[in-house]
Amino acid sequence: MAEIHAVRRAAVQQQIAALGAAAALVTSRANVRYLTGLVSSHAAVLLPVDGAVVLATDSRYAGTARRDCADAELLVDQLIEPTLARRAVSAGYRKLAFEAHEMTVERHQALTALDGGSLELVPLGRVVEELRMVKDESEIGLLERACAITCEAFSVAISQLRPEMTERALAVVLERAMIDLGAEALAFDTIVASGPNGAIPHHGPGNREFTAGDLVTIDCGARFGGYHADMTRTVAIGRPAGWQLEIYQLVEAAQAAGVASARAGQPVADVDNAARVMISDAGHGGHFSHGLGHGVGLEIHEAPLIGARKPGTLGDRVPITIEPGIYLPGAGGVRIEDTLVVRAGVGAAGSAQLLTTITRELLVL
Amino acid sequence: MAEIHAVRRAAVQQQIAALGAAAALVTSRANVRYLTGLVSSHAAVLLPVDGAVVLATDSRYAGTARRDCADAELLVDQLIEPTLARRAVSAGYRKLAFEAHEMTVERHQALTALDGGSLELVPLGRVVEELRMVKDESEIGLLERACAITCEAFSVAISQLRPEMTERALAVVLERAMIDLGAEALAFDTIVASGPNGAIPHHGPGNREFTAGDLVTIDCGARFGGYHADMTRTVAIGRPAGWQLEIYQLVEAAQAAGVASARAGQPVADVDNAARVMISDAGHGGHFSHGLGHGVGLEIHEAPLIGARKPGTLGDRVPITIEPGIYLPGAGGVRIEDTLVVRAGVGAAGSAQLLTTITRELLVL
Repeated sequence: MAEIHAVRRAAVQQQIAALGAAAALVTSRANVRYLTGLVSSHAAVLLPVDGAVVLATDSRYAGTARRDCADAELLVDQLIEPTLARRAVSAGYRKLAFEAHEMTVERHQALTALDGGSLELVPLGRVVEELRMVKDESEIGLLERACAITCEAFSVAISQLRPEMTERALAVVLERAMIDLGAEALAFDTIVASGPNGAIPHHGPGNREFTAGDLVTIDCGARFGGYHADMTRTVAIGRPAGWQLEIYQLVEAAQAAGVASARAGQPVADVDNAARVMISDAGHGGHFSHGLGHGVGLEIHEAPLIGARKPGTLGDRVPITIEPGIYLPGAGGVRIEDTLVVRAGVGAAGSAQLLTTITRELLVL
Repeated sequence: MAEIHAVRRAAVQQQIAALGAAAALVTSRANVRYLTGLVSSHAAVLLPVDGAVVLATDSRYAGTARRDCADAELLVDQLIEPTLARRAVSAGYRKLAFEAHEMTVERHQALTALDGGSLELVPLGRVVEELRMVKDESEIGLLERACAITCEAFSVAISQLRPEMTERALAVVLERAMIDLGAEALAFDTIVASGPNGAIPHHGPGNREFTAGDLVTIDCGARFGGYHADMTRTVAIGRPAGWQLEIYQLVEAAQAAGVASARAGQPVADVDNAARVMISDAGHGGHFSHGLGHGVGLEIHEAPLIGARKPGTLGDRVPITIEPGIYLPGAGGVRIEDTLVVRAGVGAAGSAQLLTTITRELLVL
């Protein structure tokens, strides 16, 4: 594993050099894990253009760091960022790249004031996040496992869904099943939105009881080995009404179009449009109020974001979600979401490798 | 509930006025929830010294915001901070307080550049966090429930603990029980550290099997209604060795001393010292490498931090943890932790209300 991290660091070192900086201070938790393997809520990395990586963490994680990051020099201190900044000063680095999208104004001011202001801090940008977009096969394997647990737990939950069960009770069954099946944690707080609550995209499960005539949207995911699964299905309690079938079929078709469009080389804005145009053409453009999807990996939401005004194109081995929805205030909603991996090779069914495999046909319970 | 939030906002408004600012931009997730009741991963608040609060969130949370925050003016936009900053400009506010400990350098630069730099941004400081330290009884009720779930789940897990079970398997039993008993989520990733792993304060549960002669440290908590429980117990698998008993009894005594010292009006540094001095006097000062405890509430770690060099005193209705430990590299460790509420009234057993109630005597399994 240490080799993987060294390879990743070498890619970042090239970018630091291109900025004209002597080193980078990497402080985003997911980025620190990605570059060193250390799982910690309090760690940072000083990565010089030349030379060995320096890892700082506090005493709670020192033992783990010694075990898992043997190729890094380790500094153990409560004040991880000043410690690394002082090391940069003593190594003679003048220009230090930092993660302006993660570091707070307060912490930045402390580093700026250090040693009489001898460090020049320049933004590193989302260099590590962009590298993280493209996953290696070991990362995809962890994501596959997270998605398999999610699907299996979803099947367990659906088999136990009954009218008069509350949203909260179903969420508990689902979450218990994910933990039981080996999830290390939930990837995010489960959403169960029934009846009119389905019009709220991120509804927290409450005490509303399922009743005949409901659509129920279930958005859930397991975390495994640090990687986050994300899946949504909408099911019907009893025979669906005409309007429910209409928006379901529309979302189903839009989701399939989004998945088919998710090919390597495709601009993300075009992928969003492939799904969105079908919903807009049916007069529901105003009821699909969020982006089509997002990258998943060490974070539940990461690059690339897939939306109408988002830049960039999809690449090989990029895991994303495709999740169109229609939300009718006061009435209900439908969302269908898969986690998939964009692959460069094109097969008959398109180039996406679907990791969440529960049927996308309407389940009527 | 809306009244509670208005009372909290009024307290913050006084502090904004004292800074000479016209309004504050509150962006910390827990602070936004505390001041409005909105549970959202993407929301911010513009709180003027005079006048109604303005809440911004994206379309995913708009329905929830309309339902739960009826007394706030709602702006729905993807770009929540620029939207609120523009509102501040149009309202004629010149000086805007912001949360420098939460806002990133990148987001701060975007606000600074807005409207030709017409806003003067000044740090608000940890005004809302300091207010959050002291809980009302409804908050303490939620924390009690989170702690009760944690204790009950711990008992379930301990009853199923067997030699040759892995750390991970025990964590799964424990986490499943918490969800089953009504936790809305885990408060944090469970720690199960057996044998030599016990020397790593934040060891992630792995595939090591419990074996006779192990001490096993279990650190876990449930989240309920947004509030985080935190409890640690160390148990013995089979008859403990002399060195294990020695460090256990030392930590047990130090923990009791810390709890006894946790009174309203007491400096947090003195509380830390009450426990630490017992461990240091026994020659283990270097093996207790972290602070004695921390506040708990809408975040798992919040004010006040309890450590040797931390400022401040404890107050009435402040929930904290007391969690001394001794960690012997290569051999093992002990930590005992309770969540408790500091109360102003002094009873015979001290003024702390213990919320985690599992025995602190060594459980030998």
